[in-house]
Amino acid sequence: MITDKNESRTALSELGEFGLISHLTKDFKIENHTTLKGIGDDAAVIDFRDKKAVISTDILIEGVHFDLSYVPLKHLGYKSVMVNLSDIYAMNAKATQITVSIAVSNRFPLEALEELYAGIRLACQKYKVDLVGGDTTSSTRGLIISITAIGEADAEDIAYRNQANEHDLIVVTGDLGGAYLGLQVLEREKAVFQVNPNLQPDLSMYTYLIERQLKPEARKDIPPLLKALGVKPTSMIDISDGLSSEILHICKQSGVGCRIYEEKIPLDPQVINTCEEFHLDSTTIALSGGEDYELLFTIKPSDYDKIKGNPNLSVIGHIVEKNQGEKLITRAGEAIEIIARGWNALKEQ
Amino acid sequence: MITDKNESRTALSELGEFGLISHLTKDFKIENHTTLKGIGDDAAVIDFRDKKAVISTDILIEGVHFDLSYVPLKHLGYKSVMVNLSDIYAMNAKATQITVSIAVSNRFPLEALEELYAGIRLACQKYKVDLVGGDTTSSTRGLIISITAIGEADAEDIAYRNQANEHDLIVVTGDLGGAYLGLQVLEREKAVFQVNPNLQPDLSMYTYLIERQLKPEARKDIPPLLKALGVKPTSMIDISDGLSSEILHICKQSGVGCRIYEEKIPLDPQVINTCEEFHLDSTTIALSGGEDYELLFTIKPSDYDKIKGNPNLSVIGHIVEKNQGEKLITRAGEAIEIIARGWNALKEQ
Repeated sequence: MITDKNESRTALSELGEFGLISHLTKDFKIENHTTLKGIGDDAAVIDFRDKKAVISTDILIEGVHFDLSYVPLKHLGYKSVMVNLSDIYAMNAKATQITVSIAVSNRFPLEALEELYAGIRLACQKYKVDLVGGDTTSSTRGLIISITAIGEADAEDIAYRNQANEHDLIVVTGDLGGAYLGLQVLEREKAVFQVNPNLQPDLSMYTYLIERQLKPEARKDIPPLLKALGVKPTSMIDISDGLSSEILHICKQSGVGCRIYEEKIPLDPQVINTCEEFHLDSTTIALSGGEDYELLFTIKPSDYDKIKGNPNLSVIGHIVEKNQGEKLITRAGEAIEIIARGWNALKEQ
Repeated sequence: MITDKNESRTALSELGEFGLISHLTKDFKIENHTTLKGIGDDAAVIDFRDKKAVISTDILIEGVHFDLSYVPLKHLGYKSVMVNLSDIYAMNAKATQITVSIAVSNRFPLEALEELYAGIRLACQKYKVDLVGGDTTSSTRGLIISITAIGEADAEDIAYRNQANEHDLIVVTGDLGGAYLGLQVLEREKAVFQVNPNLQPDLSMYTYLIERQLKPEARKDIPPLLKALGVKPTSMIDISDGLSSEILHICKQSGVGCRIYEEKIPLDPQVINTCEEFHLDSTTIALSGGEDYELLFTIKPSDYDKIKGNPNLSVIGHIVEKNQGEKLITRAGEAIEIIARGWNALKEQ
């Protein structure tokens, strides 16, 4: 298990709200010339020029969305940003700014928040996104992180969820199921650790899965890749709740049905091996696992040649008429109705 | 005390996350043609045309920022929006969109969230602001509300905190101290109610104060008023933490000092009377009370004639050189150093 070995503890009340904000954000650099005003006023000021603005927001609650007993704070900070940037990329847009609000209970020393912000800063640096505002306050219990991600795009490039058409091809980036299996591995190790804290787990077989869970990367590369390939997705969404849930969103909003081919779903060898070890069905995990932060999109059939063979992109099915429903075609050739079994934040509690 | 007489209770889990979002937001109308895409995709899309975008965010936690034993949920929804819009007006900008994220524990039935969203909707209608996104999830304890407010302004109209100059006049809108006293009245009545639940309090003497606390109005009218008067503030901030704290922000960021005249601070007669009843000093309340959501700004001395006599605006002092410090000049002519004693979310816990 990853534990906090840091012995130094500074109470947050020593700095006060404004002192804390300036302390935590002092090393953040503004990278985009469109950020006219960042932290330090009533609001940030951004110049979108002739671009359209794209804005998305997410809230993460300790005990609901993350468990600090196996998620290091730096990873949590990084992942919190990824979750939000992913929504911007899912509009086929470029992410440019974020705001970060946190609420923390007294049990968090300053050093813990420094770790969290180190992860946020790393994400900002790597993804060339400016931290431009936020709010810092206390909570009655645990850590709460609310992030708003801001991006920009030319109007004609923006991909919505509701424009998929019959015969369009369904494409997914990367591979699926890894993040969910990473969580299973971490939860198993946490249970083992609770029984015997001296046992050092060997996680080397699961490095990819754990990385997918703890340090996911949002697909910043996909919008410029598609632009370079001359492909405008007809619809697009990010895979946060699992493939099933996301394809159903596209079908519902576009008024269409779909066929997904089980054999086409991209899986990493570690996903296949670990599914065998855990006696899980890898297709179910890919369909319902969630948290992969890959992108799911549809393209016109005539664009197939442009994406064919690209290692980042897998064609997994196609769009059909609405009255043909949403079906998974299994390796055995059976057609099974796709049902959203993804994580539901309200049902889990 | 205000209690929830609503007997009907629907569990949130019956609707699921997406069902809940569409249920709560179905009656919201899009009012701004710049809102190209509202709720229902990975992100909202906004067209700022030749305007600059202004973005601010705040997080409100039950037990820290509000107490549901005397704040009705509809009022809370309304106030949560006001708190955020106030930051946009404090940039001398027009508020156009908001996103609202909420996290709730299981003890909240659907009907409670409907009340909350009724308040949010009323605020959106009255302030002509579009709800364009958000996130809805569960919390392990209590209600958490995170709002991002979005606005627009011409670049030359935006007022920052750091441009106040020596000799500038310091102006405040409305009157101060009412919201804090409203809270004192409500807390006293809560204590009385806890001793004897049958006692019906007579709050008619405090209606203005209670309204300032429970249903504050952000100063949407001020940016267009200043525009009409031909006045561009040299600096501007909203009064959320009390006059002292806010004027010190302006002084620190502008590198100047100030003189505020006690006799010039605008007070409502109910504030004066209730301060006497509670044995509180009304100047202290105005300086440190907070939550008034009025605007504090500075103007060039040559603009004085343009605002003179306007019932919305009070000149309360002027900017001096940095080395002269920040002082309150009392009615007795004494100069007292201004210290931020405003509410500090991190020290309160």
